[in-house]
Amino acid sequence: MTNRRVFLGSVAAVGALLAGCAAPSTRPVDPLPSWNDGPARQSIVAFVAKVTQEGTTGYVPPAERIAVFDNDGTLWSEQPAYVQLAFALDRVKALAPQHPEWQTQEPFASLLRGDVASALAGGEQAIAGIIMATHAGTTTEEFAKIVKDWLATARHPMTGRPYTGMVYQPMLELLDYLRANGFKTFIVSGGGIELMRPWTERVYGIPPEQVVGSSIRTKYELREGEPVLVRLPELDFIDDKAGKPVGINQHIGRRPILAFGNSDGDFEMLEWTTSGEGPRLGVIVHHDDAAREYAYDRKSHIGRLDRGLDEAGTRGWVVVSMKNDWRAIYPPSTTLHATH
Amino acid sequence: MTNRRVFLGSVAAVGALLAGCAAPSTRPVDPLPSWNDGPARQSIVAFVAKVTQEGTTGYVPPAERIAVFDNDGTLWSEQPAYVQLAFALDRVKALAPQHPEWQTQEPFASLLRGDVASALAGGEQAIAGIIMATHAGTTTEEFAKIVKDWLATARHPMTGRPYTGMVYQPMLELLDYLRANGFKTFIVSGGGIELMRPWTERVYGIPPEQVVGSSIRTKYELREGEPVLVRLPELDFIDDKAGKPVGINQHIGRRPILAFGNSDGDFEMLEWTTSGEGPRLGVIVHHDDAAREYAYDRKSHIGRLDRGLDEAGTRGWVVVSMKNDWRAIYPPSTTLHATH
Repeated sequence: MTNRRVFLGSVAAVGALLAGCAAPSTRPVDPLPSWNDGPARQSIVAFVAKVTQEGTTGYVPPAERIAVFDNDGTLWSEQPAYVQLAFALDRVKALAPQHPEWQTQEPFASLLRGDVASALAGGEQAIAGIIMATHAGTTTEEFAKIVKDWLATARHPMTGRPYTGMVYQPMLELLDYLRANGFKTFIVSGGGIELMRPWTERVYGIPPEQVVGSSIRTKYELREGEPVLVRLPELDFIDDKAGKPVGINQHIGRRPILAFGNSDGDFEMLEWTTSGEGPRLGVIVHHDDAAREYAYDRKSHIGRLDRGLDEAGTRGWVVVSMKNDWRAIYPPSTTLHATH
Repeated sequence: MTNRRVFLGSVAAVGALLAGCAAPSTRPVDPLPSWNDGPARQSIVAFVAKVTQEGTTGYVPPAERIAVFDNDGTLWSEQPAYVQLAFALDRVKALAPQHPEWQTQEPFASLLRGDVASALAGGEQAIAGIIMATHAGTTTEEFAKIVKDWLATARHPMTGRPYTGMVYQPMLELLDYLRANGFKTFIVSGGGIELMRPWTERVYGIPPEQVVGSSIRTKYELREGEPVLVRLPELDFIDDKAGKPVGINQHIGRRPILAFGNSDGDFEMLEWTTSGEGPRLGVIVHHDDAAREYAYDRKSHIGRLDRGLDEAGTRGWVVVSMKNDWRAIYPPSTTLHATH
């Protein structure tokens, strides 16, 4: 009986240890439930299997498993306008009383009339001007608070969801899946770096130090003895097109092995990622689902995808059809939680 | 007997599980054997204990346990000259045949005569000129190879050690200790970012994406169809003095809670780090050990420490005496391994 008691006790101990240990589950759980079992999913899963298989020629050590993701149109919706533009429009309205000249000065005048299309007519130059006028002049900490306060109340014009509810459920699953397989996930976006950092950790599981984006200059100074970083109305870096590999090198310092984008603004990032030695994967999210999201590519002035579609085949890049490859687009409404 | 056999079998199973689990060791191992038990070590250990104690007001979640370290003079020796200058001098010699004008042009002429002091007389401007002439014109991957090849053969002029053997053993232990306590460790150096990245992971356990430093611009282009990043002779960013908080914000995106430096070039980094809310620690490594390393502070033109010494007390910064607080300076020769 003594032995039996000890034996039973030790079974309990084994159970406790197993609960604490990362013991393999006997019930297989699909890590990508929102992905249909098509060629896109199969390519991604096969790539992950290859680079994690120790002792094979395709094996990549965890430290080198760098995966980069564009944000607008790849991790969350960018239509009918970049979220950053919606933010800037609201900031223009909030700051307008201090800038009477904006009533007649473009692109501000159009924005204040609610005419986003006319404001956008000035192209990236106009957008840059709006960004500069609305993103500078605060400290970095004040700006982060402005972003968080705005996200708490702003809603997408079509769905009425908070913008952080306009993220793609299949991509959330993919980020988790890659991290569970030893990948380090980074955002490499043309959008403003400080507009993303206040929420990417909570929403995507990507911490601020793994966010690369466009930036304006900052200056260190003392205000009443307290050090602050002041955001200056001077461009620092545009993290788009050929700037993306430059931003990747500056922030990450090594070449990723996996890149996800959705527009020709991501072309060079995919090219840079997939041109190195060893296993590499480039993936393009194709917006072909007018019913559940938006359908746009070659002719769109937001997220234009033209050359990428032409060359994906010859370059071996995977094209994800949102319509066919994704079972769901957004997270269920019930999972949306407070934004700060 | 059956029960007994099963019991013995299950004891073996428990042992196997314990070996696989991170079971707490019963034998306490000193994580900082090269640190004497003085006030510096006590302050560091008390700080780590405070921020890792869940349920207390001082607790800091792991994601926010950001620790930043200067490199030159804080993690490795910077005397008799910055390692980067030794690298540049050797590069000047290697490139001299392609630059006959350097025979008469300062600071190159002095360097080619081996007269480092005269070359340095031009101050930071001269150093920047040397850096630009010797660090640009290659691709990023060519430059990384040049750095690794150089480190494999270059030796410190006083000790004959490879430069990666001139790192401080107590700091290696401290980096490991902090990481074991959930900290993410970053380098924030005035030195060139691409001169550090090829070896910091192997030597310090700090991956390239956690290295912040000074940089020159790069440009993405295709060479015979292959994408490369070309290093341009244009300054991008100086990560020194008031630039350090700017670099921290650009790369890390949140304020560290722990900063280590050794010179007034680290003053603003320590000020920025220790001015935030919650528990914070600033530490200065004081080079006061002429017998085992070097003794220099207020009058040195490399790693000058003047204001930092004056204000450490009132600001609550810890000053580490290399002479009194460190039991060893460098790793034992037997542990030095190949540099690539």
